[in-house]
Amino acid sequence: MFNVTILGNNSAVPAFDRHPTSQVLTTNNELFLIDCGEGTQMQMQLYKIKRSRINHIFISHLHGDHYFGLIGLITSYGLMGRINDLYLYSPPGLQVIVQMQLDVANVVLPYALHFVTITSNTILLQNNKIKVSCFATNHRIACYGFRFDEVKSPRSIDAPKCLQHEIPAAYYTKLQQGENYEKRDGTIVLNEAVTVANTAAKSYAYCADTKYDETILPFIQNVDLLYHETTYLDALQDKATERYHTTTKQAAAIAIQANAKQLLIGHFSSKYSVLDDFATETQSIFANTVLAIEGGVFEV
Amino acid sequence: MFNVTILGNNSAVPAFDRHPTSQVLTTNNELFLIDCGEGTQMQMQLYKIKRSRINHIFISHLHGDHYFGLIGLITSYGLMGRINDLYLYSPPGLQVIVQMQLDVANVVLPYALHFVTITSNTILLQNNKIKVSCFATNHRIACYGFRFDEVKSPRSIDAPKCLQHEIPAAYYTKLQQGENYEKRDGTIVLNEAVTVANTAAKSYAYCADTKYDETILPFIQNVDLLYHETTYLDALQDKATERYHTTTKQAAAIAIQANAKQLLIGHFSSKYSVLDDFATETQSIFANTVLAIEGGVFEV
Repeated sequence: MFNVTILGNNSAVPAFDRHPTSQVLTTNNELFLIDCGEGTQMQMQLYKIKRSRINHIFISHLHGDHYFGLIGLITSYGLMGRINDLYLYSPPGLQVIVQMQLDVANVVLPYALHFVTITSNTILLQNNKIKVSCFATNHRIACYGFRFDEVKSPRSIDAPKCLQHEIPAAYYTKLQQGENYEKRDGTIVLNEAVTVANTAAKSYAYCADTKYDETILPFIQNVDLLYHETTYLDALQDKATERYHTTTKQAAAIAIQANAKQLLIGHFSSKYSVLDDFATETQSIFANTVLAIEGGVFEV
Repeated sequence: MFNVTILGNNSAVPAFDRHPTSQVLTTNNELFLIDCGEGTQMQMQLYKIKRSRINHIFISHLHGDHYFGLIGLITSYGLMGRINDLYLYSPPGLQVIVQMQLDVANVVLPYALHFVTITSNTILLQNNKIKVSCFATNHRIACYGFRFDEVKSPRSIDAPKCLQHEIPAAYYTKLQQGENYEKRDGTIVLNEAVTVANTAAKSYAYCADTKYDETILPFIQNVDLLYHETTYLDALQDKATERYHTTTKQAAAIAIQANAKQLLIGHFSSKYSVLDDFATETQSIFANTVLAIEGGVFEV
């Protein structure tokens, strides 16, 4: 399982029952929250997100429509008895804002909050399931996009066959990397006999608020699913540039150059009560485009 | 017009589609916002509140379920081009929290924010239409209730009759206070001939989070509508006291002693998925009790 659920798709001000930005990336092992606009915890209830499985929250930048829901989520976790550590990744400034609000209310959380301050393009998280890296985007204030890469060994263990060949579990990691196994008597068990090929590791990139900027391309190359903001339709390209945002056709151009398989667009301006033109305009250049409709679940 | 619209009636954590605390007091002249939990600006859209008519926001205390929606509302006002001054009344600590969040986002509001810090029982606002005063409640952190009293002259001008008697407009204020008018020739125009009696000035008291505490009684005497929190049902009185909250029957006891005409109860714990017992228990002691249902509009 590797998919994205949209909790909020609007920019700046909530409007037309669209909410400020938030997404959940769901994997087999855990959930990752990306941005957390006001009302995210209510949207999680509406769309039945298992919030207890979130241990890492990535905040692209400190404009309110991307993080005003965070303090509510943090305190609700406390009230609901969370004990697992929670990691918050963001540009500088978040920790003092959160801590001040906890202090004024005399709140002592029953779990540990870890603030990871992002100041450059780097790897934020890496384990045997996933790698998360960040890259600077071009916005009015410090802002980062995030790339999530599944980590998968090339092969999976076929446990019954390994038992049949009496291969010790300690050797499984090498088998997953494609090695053969040599028995004590010198017999070779071919890797293909005791493993199966894994499906390809998938990747998701989240290009938070940004003006059109090709410098992000190296960081989002070949992703399976690319989220890019499209605050405005094509007609308002000047306004988009002036406000450090992107249009439909610009996002499509980025998707082509990034060689993305699919494009997911969101962060719609409250100017627009209906979103049909966002799909039409973007698809005219990059056909495999979908709208980030709230409640929508998109396979990576 | 003098009524209260409920935007959020739940305590602590949003649940069962109930939202954290917020209310709007509507008068003929303007609206007053009382507390502003997360999502208040969305609830305003849902219930068609004319937010531009709000110039004064009263925050009872700095627990998140009473103010986490404020920063979103403040920034949305800015994005929507508000120019009128906005007054925020709260216990100490709010200004630095708001300002820090504006600073980190490089936001310069197009209107003036005035922070009024509450540190004692006092009159917060008084003009020829309304008087707003505050009183300390008994909660875990500094917390205040608010009392809104309509300001009305005893009599209203009957303009056609005043014209008929050739009474100059400069004399209207005295007529509104009940005085007679003496013409140049010494003839007396009786007050009753040129004015009509006003309806009684109404009053609303909002008893924010508090444990049962009779010391608030002098401040809420004889109100037409009394909002009192009832976080718990009667069975959890010990828990209510321990957590500085109130039960149904305790709120009813306060309403009786305050000689309130009607009691409005809210701030329900997320323990309770249905609210019927809140009404039943409270009404068993104070019959004229209503539940603060979200979207409900209650005449004062």
